Amino acid sequence: MSDARDYIDRLGRAARAASRLMAKASPDAKAQCLTHLRAHLKANEAAILEANRQDLEGAKAKGLDEAFLDRLALTPARLAAMMEGVTQVLGLPDPIGEISNMTRQPSGIRVGHMRVPLGVVAMIYEARPNVTIDAAILALKAGNAIILRGGSEALTTNRVLANCIKAALSEAGLPKDAVQFIDSPDRDLVGALITAPEWVDVLIPRGGKSLVARLAKDARVPMIKHLDGICHTYVDKDADLKMALTVTENAKTQRYAPCNATETLLVHKKVAFKFLPDMARLFYDKGVEMRCDELSRRIVEQSGYSAVDATPEDWDTEYNAPIISIKVVESLAEAIDFINTHGSHHTDAIITENVHAAEQFLVEVDSSSVMHNTSTRFADGFEYGLGAEIGISTDKLHARGPVGLLGLTSQKFVVLGQGQGRH
Amino acid sequence: MSDARDYIDRLGRAARAASRLMAKASPDAKAQCLTHLRAHLKANEAAILEANRQDLEGAKAKGLDEAFLDRLALTPARLAAMMEGVTQVLGLPDPIGEISNMTRQPSGIRVGHMRVPLGVVAMIYEARPNVTIDAAILALKAGNAIILRGGSEALTTNRVLANCIKAALSEAGLPKDAVQFIDSPDRDLVGALITAPEWVDVLIPRGGKSLVARLAKDARVPMIKHLDGICHTYVDKDADLKMALTVTENAKTQRYAPCNATETLLVHKKVAFKFLPDMARLFYDKGVEMRCDELSRRIVEQSGYSAVDATPEDWDTEYNAPIISIKVVESLAEAIDFINTHGSHHTDAIITENVHAAEQFLVEVDSSSVMHNTSTRFADGFEYGLGAEIGISTDKLHARGPVGLLGLTSQKFVVLGQGQGRH
Repeated sequence: MSDARDYIDRLGRAARAASRLMAKASPDAKAQCLTHLRAHLKANEAAILEANRQDLEGAKAKGLDEAFLDRLALTPARLAAMMEGVTQVLGLPDPIGEISNMTRQPSGIRVGHMRVPLGVVAMIYEARPNVTIDAAILALKAGNAIILRGGSEALTTNRVLANCIKAALSEAGLPKDAVQFIDSPDRDLVGALITAPEWVDVLIPRGGKSLVARLAKDARVPMIKHLDGICHTYVDKDADLKMALTVTENAKTQRYAPCNATETLLVHKKVAFKFLPDMARLFYDKGVEMRCDELSRRIVEQSGYSAVDATPEDWDTEYNAPIISIKVVESLAEAIDFINTHGSHHTDAIITENVHAAEQFLVEVDSSSVMHNTSTRFADGFEYGLGAEIGISTDKLHARGPVGLLGLTSQKFVVLGQGQGRH
Repeated sequence: MSDARDYIDRLGRAARAASRLMAKASPDAKAQCLTHLRAHLKANEAAILEANRQDLEGAKAKGLDEAFLDRLALTPARLAAMMEGVTQVLGLPDPIGEISNMTRQPSGIRVGHMRVPLGVVAMIYEARPNVTIDAAILALKAGNAIILRGGSEALTTNRVLANCIKAALSEAGLPKDAVQFIDSPDRDLVGALITAPEWVDVLIPRGGKSLVARLAKDARVPMIKHLDGICHTYVDKDADLKMALTVTENAKTQRYAPCNATETLLVHKKVAFKFLPDMARLFYDKGVEMRCDELSRRIVEQSGYSAVDATPEDWDTEYNAPIISIKVVESLAEAIDFINTHGSHHTDAIITENVHAAEQFLVEVDSSSVMHNTSTRFADGFEYGLGAEIGISTDKLHARGPVGLLGLTSQKFVVLGQGQGRH
């Protein structure tokens, strides 16, 4: 572990020093860096794909499954999407240096906020090489240095990508140390990295819940993290049932894997008999398994579709699969209470034409995104107009919900005087 | 420890449930609660002072020192200041429910931010009973529940104060469980509290650095914390030296104990020979010990005042005492680098008439407050116009610098649609 500590100290010290230079980099230099990076990704396309081929071969030899290999694989189309991501971040306004809320106080001093970088961002992620570029461009645009620790199966690909970033930094007159790539699969390095508050201002993990939970348990640095995505759609007694059908179908079936897909459908008792038969048919047609409470199971089965009994665990489960749990509730208050108890504070929606019900739901549901008459699948940085996102936070501090460029910045107080002292 | 865990689970569950009711409390109910609290503090003045007398007796019997007893002691004047604090927080606008930045996105959905409480705030603090009231009124006004763990020497006083808060909550129709008072000196309870992310949304420690550092090491819940206050005043070559004298005197000597008092004076070489003799006289007159680098010591001694050599530790020391470390620097860049290396990222000031130097200092010094031509002593929630402060954060995430009411809130996304699904 002391070797790991030395490695992280060396790399962390370099990142810290580079972060000071990045903090004062001009918007133009940062834009040039991204422009150079896009060119390097294009020019090195063959080398990147070859490196990725080697990683894929290694992963196959290890017997990793298709889903894993799919996340690891780069193709010309995926590389083009990466470059498009660079173009999008280039188009975002540079957030650093903005001064806001400048007020004059009774003492005569003026006090305002200046937007500044966080400093050093550490990313720990699984074997998805696109995260290397997505994370680096956001962190650098926000004036930070970044430490990258990707999944070991993507090491060869990530090395080539990190070198593209380093070259782009140098060509823009920025310190190439502003990107630090952990070029080793040694797991002790992760342990050393997440316990180094002197080098890391924020840790952003990207990956499955078990990875994030493990890091949260051991980390001694602040984190922006995402745990579960147990999202609900609640169909109120005053819902437009046609809208409820299309929105719920979209929320559950547009894609199954994302964290913002709905996992539990709550239906008010007054509309359950009318709504659930049509809903069940849609789910049946798409092969979505229905796990139901007693009443909803009866209604679904009476409509001629099959359902199974939900177990207590179902109400606390993120399926990321064509499975939905369904429950009939007696009231809006019961729905809200159920969501606050069993949800993951991620994204929850109400379908209703009743403005009072909508207001109550939006105020009382304690989730990072609360929605009225629309699909939980919209919980996303691009859809919210933030531009690229570095992740979705289920924390409450600092950043909640989709985290874009601003989530990688902080604000410091700027105080301007004319020689005042305090009395 | 399992008894402690049970105690914290019981108390945490009650706080969590109460926080849901507080989150939807009307501004009027919260204002009524504070008005009732002020009345209870007045009506129970004798009981509070008697309880405090018992605590003071216990602390004296334990042989605790004068400074400790002074922090613990309540007087009619201090009680009046507490009530004045309640009045001030009553006067702040209620932050909860504000919706901002509502935009319409290409999909047709509208996306905005709603300001919401954090949930459950835990305060761990030393034997200063005023913190019980200061923290509770800010937390409750921001719609949170609060768990209070004060120093064991103040237990009797805090119990009476907590009962005043509970009574005020009940009379305002709010849940009295919104304040949870840990009525036991058992240290295991602290360990259980700071490792309970299911009950605690944010932990705010108030007290000496060793307490805060210990909590930061063991906590598994997010913290807003304050470690050192190693603040600098830098006198630039283009300073108005008369202003530099009065501002530096104020920054060091107006009060010695606060975290925003200047601990290190940096002086540009070009003005050191002119500035330091006058400065040394002021420090000498007030009995401030000067710990100097070689050149500044020479200048101070040639002016007829005594100085001692600074050790390397002096540059990293928060004195909170009539001691100042002094160093001559060759350039603005050296001053900035020195502050970023040896400071605590709390508050640092430049004295200069040169706008370019000021701009560079304000941008490049990585501290929660950066100041131009004024005293570091101004780093304070009241002076910044935030109203009461719950503390000063030296963290970068969520809240940086003085933390007022807004620091005890979060923002969630509100999404309004008309039946949209995602494509």
